[in-house]
Amino acid sequence: MDVPERTRELFSEERSAEVVAASFADTPDPRLRQVLTSLVSHLHAFVKDVELTEDEWSAAVDFLTRTGQTCSDVRQEFILLSDVLGVSMLVETINHRTRGTSTESTVLGPFHLVESPPRALGDDINLDGKGTPCLVSGQVTGPDGEPLAGATIDVWQTNEDGFYDVQQPDVQPPGNLRGLFTADEHGRFRFRSVVPRYYPIPDDGPVGQLLAATNRHPNRPAHLHFIASAPGYRPVTTHVFVADSPYLDSDAVFGVKESLVRDVHVVDDPARAAEAGLANPFHALTFDLVLLRADRPPPEASR
Amino acid sequence: MDVPERTRELFSEERSAEVVAASFADTPDPRLRQVLTSLVSHLHAFVKDVELTEDEWSAAVDFLTRTGQTCSDVRQEFILLSDVLGVSMLVETINHRTRGTSTESTVLGPFHLVESPPRALGDDINLDGKGTPCLVSGQVTGPDGEPLAGATIDVWQTNEDGFYDVQQPDVQPPGNLRGLFTADEHGRFRFRSVVPRYYPIPDDGPVGQLLAATNRHPNRPAHLHFIASAPGYRPVTTHVFVADSPYLDSDAVFGVKESLVRDVHVVDDPARAAEAGLANPFHALTFDLVLLRADRPPPEASR
Ligand SMILES: [Cu+2]
Ligand SMILES: [Fe+3]
Ligand SMILES: [Fe+3]
Repeated sequence: MDVPERTRELFSEERSAEVVAASFADTPDPRLRQVLTSLVSHLHAFVKDVELTEDEWSAAVDFLTRTGQTCSDVRQEFILLSDVLGVSMLVETINHRTRGTSTESTVLGPFHLVESPPRALGDDINLDGKGTPCLVSGQVTGPDGEPLAGATIDVWQTNEDGFYDVQQPDVQPPGNLRGLFTADEHGRFRFRSVVPRYYPIPDDGPVGQLLAATNRHPNRPAHLHFIASAPGYRPVTTHVFVADSPYLDSDAVFGVKESLVRDVHVVDDPARAAEAGLANPFHALTFDLVLLRADRPPPEASR
Repeated sequence: MDVPERTRELFSEERSAEVVAASFADTPDPRLRQVLTSLVSHLHAFVKDVELTEDEWSAAVDFLTRTGQTCSDVRQEFILLSDVLGVSMLVETINHRTRGTSTESTVLGPFHLVESPPRALGDDINLDGKGTPCLVSGQVTGPDGEPLAGATIDVWQTNEDGFYDVQQPDVQPPGNLRGLFTADEHGRFRFRSVVPRYYPIPDDGPVGQLLAATNRHPNRPAHLHFIASAPGYRPVTTHVFVADSPYLDSDAVFGVKESLVRDVHVVDDPARAAEAGLANPFHALTFDLVLLRADRPPPEASR
């Protein structure tokens, strides 16, 4: 018989990551090869660090399987897993460094599922009438303070019961608490909404079981999602967080950055209330956004 | 308003793993806390090493979701993923160190789905009559060479077409090429089977796509699975590999260890052929197994 030549190194505990990495040597895409080589190196280092047992390995396989099988058209359990392990926030942060020169980003979250409905400045996005009315306003500028006339501001938040419209298609009007606004000639925007409140991420699946097993609560502090963009500038995906919300220092998905926290003020000014279409006194939240210029390289990591 | 006290550190790129690890501080089970802390540390280090892009993160979420959704009662795609990344082999090796004092282990694989049917020594497990008949025999001993009378040997392999019986319930007789044998008073076993051949792992799912994208073939070199056990000894899950098989140095799941490779000999001996119930000349494969004593600690890693 023709015995095939054996030239490649066989698996061993000591050299496991190198042997597996070598199997990716013929990957045509160099970036895929780089990513897989790094992944294998860290994954094997993890297994060795903790000396993972066979029962733990089985539990991990079972957990990942159930996580995949919990995903549907309206639910992404692997994003949720990435969120509660801080991976989503890390990827977001690495890819949108600001070094203080622009509005910091935070996670997109799993509920930007639909195009927000276009609305006029001043509109009320609170279509179900629940919650505490709030005037939200701000200005979008570039890094040198230049107002970005016509900037686009996409916003979305939960209703007073802590759910997004897409989570309650039979309860909330479609497009409830979502809006796509175009800033005025000074880059300013304003709209009526409700004071955001904290809410739990979906915790009836495998990720919820992980949170329960680790004594972590599933809540996110009160926030309003923003995507701001303007031609010639880098868009930013972020939230504004409400300063007096519970869970600000224990966000289940690690989304809070100090620079994104704002007070909700009570304004006692009948003229401004009338202008905004709100009863006096009213709640108000101001959030200005600074976008980076697209023609300049993004800031590097500070390491 | 009562502003809740904020005491915990917020997320930052620099301290991402520490901040997430701190969220597991109240985990009641110290082992779970240890495993998650190590996992987060290596996972974040991976993301930082490669500066994972948002598109790559999305592709990973999609890949994991499809992997979970490919799993069914007869298919475990996450085990397959663990296999092709060398993780299964690493876990197996860490948990069954031998340092040369006993038969080395290798991966169980996803096809030990059923109890093997009990058979008598000398029986033929090749129920579909395909392939090249082969006499398989060996002896099970303890570390000091003591024969393990009555040891149990569970074996399974693919048929000549490269499939296990459970993969072809409508084609192969149930229990084809599986058997549960009890060794004789000298710890010896023998049975009739076929010369094992190489076969591909299922490659029509996400794991197959990963192999294709990295120019890796899906094949495993020819092998016969064994689980050998005896009261008072540590069981071993292993394979015997056929020395002239293709893919011995590029097993898709990294299962090959040099100590597990054996020649298939052609024996020209009419008396032994008649005794075994095979036509002369016949093929023969010998695999002796050494089990560790359960009352002695398993060997440590050599580092
Ligand atoms: Cu690592
Ligand atoms: Fe949200
Ligand atoms: Fe196999």
